Amino acid sequence: MTGMARWEPDSRGRLRHAALDLYGERGFERTTVAEIARRAGVTERTFFRHFADKREVLFAGSEELQETMVRAVADAPASLAPLDAVARGVEAAGAVLPDREMARRRQTVIAANAELRERELIKFASLSAALAETLRGRGLEDPAASLTAEIGIAVFRNAFERWLAADDERDLPALVRDSLEQVSALAAGR
Amino acid sequence: MTGMARWEPDSRGRLRHAALDLYGERGFERTTVAEIARRAGVTERTFFRHFADKREVLFAGSEELQETMVRAVADAPASLAPLDAVARGVEAAGAVLPDREMARRRQTVIAANAELRERELIKFASLSAALAETLRGRGLEDPAASLTAEIGIAVFRNAFERWLAADDERDLPALVRDSLEQVSALAAGR
Repeated sequence: MTGMARWEPDSRGRLRHAALDLYGERGFERTTVAEIARRAGVTERTFFRHFADKREVLFAGSEELQETMVRAVADAPASLAPLDAVARGVEAAGAVLPDREMARRRQTVIAANAELRERELIKFASLSAALAETLRGRGLEDPAASLTAEIGIAVFRNAFERWLAADDERDLPALVRDSLEQVSALAAGR
Repeated sequence: MTGMARWEPDSRGRLRHAALDLYGERGFERTTVAEIARRAGVTERTFFRHFADKREVLFAGSEELQETMVRAVADAPASLAPLDAVARGVEAAGAVLPDREMARRRQTVIAANAELRERELIKFASLSAALAETLRGRGLEDPAASLTAEIGIAVFRNAFERWLAADDERDLPALVRDSLEQVSALAAGR
């Protein structure tokens, strides 16, 4: 990547912007890789050096997101309660998300296409499995490990949706903490 | 259905058994509707009177499951805490599930096929949305309604997986209550 930067400044970022523009203008289905590359001012060959296909432009951040969350949970102090360790992962996720306007446009594209919605569900299922595995690595047994991971994902998605919908400047970590407090209140209210 | 019962005794049930047998023997991909119908001793026309395609044989119970859960949550006493209202729905689900041996065979088929795993994820996402809507109908606001529904689904899936994996006679409602207790303990331990 560093070598490429001299002759293709941020082609990856330009491809992501061009793809979101085109998906928004004419829909995901009717956009081709050739059009994305042309809009970004690069060749198709360059597109495929960065992304496997036009769908993966939307999900390219998922691996980084998962690695970031898993590392934060693994590195959380051993003294932390499981849900608080997962909360560290969810808060760390905020650091690798795109800015809110880009995230909103991405979500609009995904919401309009069944295949993309499925892909999103699969990514979250994979994330949940990775978090459960990390929690077992911290010595938490099942079923607690799986349940903690699922609650972590629910909190992340909930806070993320509220962040996308918000018209104020509330930040994602604050919404994550709020969603987690809601879970505690719900469990305590039984 | 009542009219059909006289000349096609339980053809629906026989089709489900035949499909599970064939999916287990030769795999979901390599099984055709014609083969399922032949094994069940009915015509293809009869197959399509009961199921849209060979995939839906595996998911035909989903609507009934969703209706049962939604009704139980809607009918739960207003005094019940949200998570306990959802627990009523999850416990009610146990009544419409197939027997454990059938459920295990179904799960083995789904686990082996990416398209079927996706379909399962979509069914759970739809179930979660329906439960959240029902909770809002009970006067619970978001984000609590969405979070409660997500926790309910997590508890259901967790208890269901443990039920499938168990080699003893523990029943699903007991496992549901146990998973829910685990959630409470996790939330209280923060």
